[in-house]
Amino acid sequence: MSVITRLDATQSDFDERLDALLAWESVSDANVAGVVSDILREVKARGDDALVEYTNRFDRRQVASVDELVIKPEQLHAALHSISGEQRDALQVAAERIRQYHQHQRQESWQYTEADGTVLGQQITAMERVGLYVPGGKASYPSSVLMNAIPAKVAGVEQLTMVVPAPDGELSPMVLAAAAIAGVDRVITIGGAQAVAALAYGTNTITRVDKIVGPGNIYVATAKRAVFGQVAIDMIAGPSEILVVCDGKTDPDWIAMDLFSQAEHDEQAQAILVSPDEEFLNKVEAAIERLLPGLERTAIAATSLKNRGALIKVANIEQALEVSNRIAPEHLELSVEDPQALLPAVRHAGAIFMGRYTPEALGDYCAGPNHVLPTSGTARFSSPLGVYDFQKRSSIIQCSAQGASTLGKVASVLARSESLEAHARSAEYRIID
Amino acid sequence: MSVITRLDATQSDFDERLDALLAWESVSDANVAGVVSDILREVKARGDDALVEYTNRFDRRQVASVDELVIKPEQLHAALHSISGEQRDALQVAAERIRQYHQHQRQESWQYTEADGTVLGQQITAMERVGLYVPGGKASYPSSVLMNAIPAKVAGVEQLTMVVPAPDGELSPMVLAAAAIAGVDRVITIGGAQAVAALAYGTNTITRVDKIVGPGNIYVATAKRAVFGQVAIDMIAGPSEILVVCDGKTDPDWIAMDLFSQAEHDEQAQAILVSPDEEFLNKVEAAIERLLPGLERTAIAATSLKNRGALIKVANIEQALEVSNRIAPEHLELSVEDPQALLPAVRHAGAIFMGRYTPEALGDYCAGPNHVLPTSGTARFSSPLGVYDFQKRSSIIQCSAQGASTLGKVASVLARSESLEAHARSAEYRIID
Repeated sequence: MSVITRLDATQSDFDERLDALLAWESVSDANVAGVVSDILREVKARGDDALVEYTNRFDRRQVASVDELVIKPEQLHAALHSISGEQRDALQVAAERIRQYHQHQRQESWQYTEADGTVLGQQITAMERVGLYVPGGKASYPSSVLMNAIPAKVAGVEQLTMVVPAPDGELSPMVLAAAAIAGVDRVITIGGAQAVAALAYGTNTITRVDKIVGPGNIYVATAKRAVFGQVAIDMIAGPSEILVVCDGKTDPDWIAMDLFSQAEHDEQAQAILVSPDEEFLNKVEAAIERLLPGLERTAIAATSLKNRGALIKVANIEQALEVSNRIAPEHLELSVEDPQALLPAVRHAGAIFMGRYTPEALGDYCAGPNHVLPTSGTARFSSPLGVYDFQKRSSIIQCSAQGASTLGKVASVLARSESLEAHARSAEYRIID
Repeated sequence: MSVITRLDATQSDFDERLDALLAWESVSDANVAGVVSDILREVKARGDDALVEYTNRFDRRQVASVDELVIKPEQLHAALHSISGEQRDALQVAAERIRQYHQHQRQESWQYTEADGTVLGQQITAMERVGLYVPGGKASYPSSVLMNAIPAKVAGVEQLTMVVPAPDGELSPMVLAAAAIAGVDRVITIGGAQAVAALAYGTNTITRVDKIVGPGNIYVATAKRAVFGQVAIDMIAGPSEILVVCDGKTDPDWIAMDLFSQAEHDEQAQAILVSPDEEFLNKVEAAIERLLPGLERTAIAATSLKNRGALIKVANIEQALEVSNRIAPEHLELSVEDPQALLPAVRHAGAIFMGRYTPEALGDYCAGPNHVLPTSGTARFSSPLGVYDFQKRSSIIQCSAQGASTLGKVASVLARSESLEAHARSAEYRIID
């Protein structure tokens, strides 16, 4: 059995085989839904008391009140000074680059005035309060703190509350340091569905937020889906994936490592290479075989590549882009000589990594753009997390007396055709000629 | 019993009484969820056959194939010529104004180049295919077709499919005419959860879409919530509401009619007036009592005002805006002399109707901004439907050799601190000094 599946886009069964490769069903578990529903109800009804009970039970803590779960500003600063200078510098460089990029996404209010004096526009404001979920334990990623927190602060969110479980009281100093650098306003060591409930409904200690963002396990994802509507949520992510399109002229070892950098995330991660150069695909396959055993996370990467990875031969670069648009990948790496020339043909992708010097890993940490990206083909309709996710719009309409008279006649006809007479009369009151 | 509740924001029990007034729970019905789940599964599995069966059953049709459910372009044009000239003109004026306003919302791609040659940016593209749900029967609103379809077409959506049930084969000519004017690409006479399923999963006849928008009953809302993630959806709306802030100098009859124009929608609709002028509140109450019996929809408006309406006395205009920000109303009417002066204090509102000449009804039909707005306080975190809802973004990262080397060092430190070694090595391959 080979290390990775080989496909050929010019063969008749390709569509079918690609569909099978991409197939992935989000787990929805009735047991989980029941547990989450209980937790949400309890936290909604009993607030802080329920929060303390669940935290003591699930995270093996022994706290008497929610106050003990709140991290003090001094603790954040202590964490920032407990990590190595190299780590602190790297977090600071990454944060500054993320901040600079995201400032380009800020949207501004606008108005315009029509000939009769009527003013139309849009007022843009930031959400007031946002909750950021950060997983605890092994999957505790400081980069995720930066990527979620910084866009919210650039948008102007006043109160950014981070929740992070501390199983057995353990917390990652890197995660706390990232929170300090990103300007998180408050950190509370709670997690799971109980943390989502506290953020969505509020308790005496935790103020209700307007939006909850950040990754989490199936309990967290199920809870977020349940409170959607009560608060806003970000997309619920599927497994991470990369599609590399290569002209065959990049070092095969580089491409193999770029695929590994996706495959090492977890067994469900998906790494696919598409190239018109069959000989190059052979070389990458050989590089995978040679380099795979030397990775720190060999077992995970090997399972991911074997079950969900593929090397796909296409007729030409145009067909490579067709395959890409069909997949709508989370990460698209265009490892070619002139990637800008291909850009107009890219219809759907979360982030586009262009040229041989832009591996996904740079975007994951410090290039500037966000690493929270639409997965599982949802780039067809969704976007990277951004400043716009923490801003909202209000329409502005200010009719002049003349404008109201003109528009009142139109509104009256349409309202009466919809049998909404009070609408019509309200408009007609403003008709002056 | 009076026609409408009176509250005073300066009294100690005001917060409590306001909370009680605003309280509204979205109906979630286990029976509905079961029916919807069956319908989704059947349409997913059996496609067009299931669609025909459900449509014949629920809409009392007798069609043999989905082809009979597709409206031909000739039928759309016939509808456009079957309505009165006045109605056609009104639809066309409204459509043109909506189009002009929404063109201001188009977002453009951008890139910038850093000192070392690294290029960062964002590519903005339209969704390819969108589905628009339009209710049939009595709640069949041509204005809703314009408000949902035009932003999608302004965004550049290639294929806009409208679904509208035709109970007993009946269709509204105004709705079809609006579809023709708005540039809808395809109209299919299906509705309910089966229409949502067809749009979300696709059938032989109906191509799967990327996003589903538009209002619907509880079956439609439940189905949209269930397919969320598979496709994008718009917000699921609660009852419509208006908050009027008045300085007491607008004609009380006008304000009464503005409140009616909300209250006549349905019994759950909410119309609230806030003013510092008690005498004015008395005059509006008298106007309500006098005008209410003469409405076409008196019973609905009376129930809405009695159960969910209120006239609220405040100490001053500043307190009026505090009440408004707490409610985060769908429609906010600032019926005052200098509404622009109040604008910076408005934190949350779907649409802001400014001055005495801007009743909500003008915005509902033809001012230009969208009438699909966040309800039930969700203006805290969401926005009017807009062109941005049909566009999506892809991040662009193109590192120069030097840029990759600089960033590679930072990424390497962070990746190793997250124990993601392949990420680190992928970045390190690009370090050149």
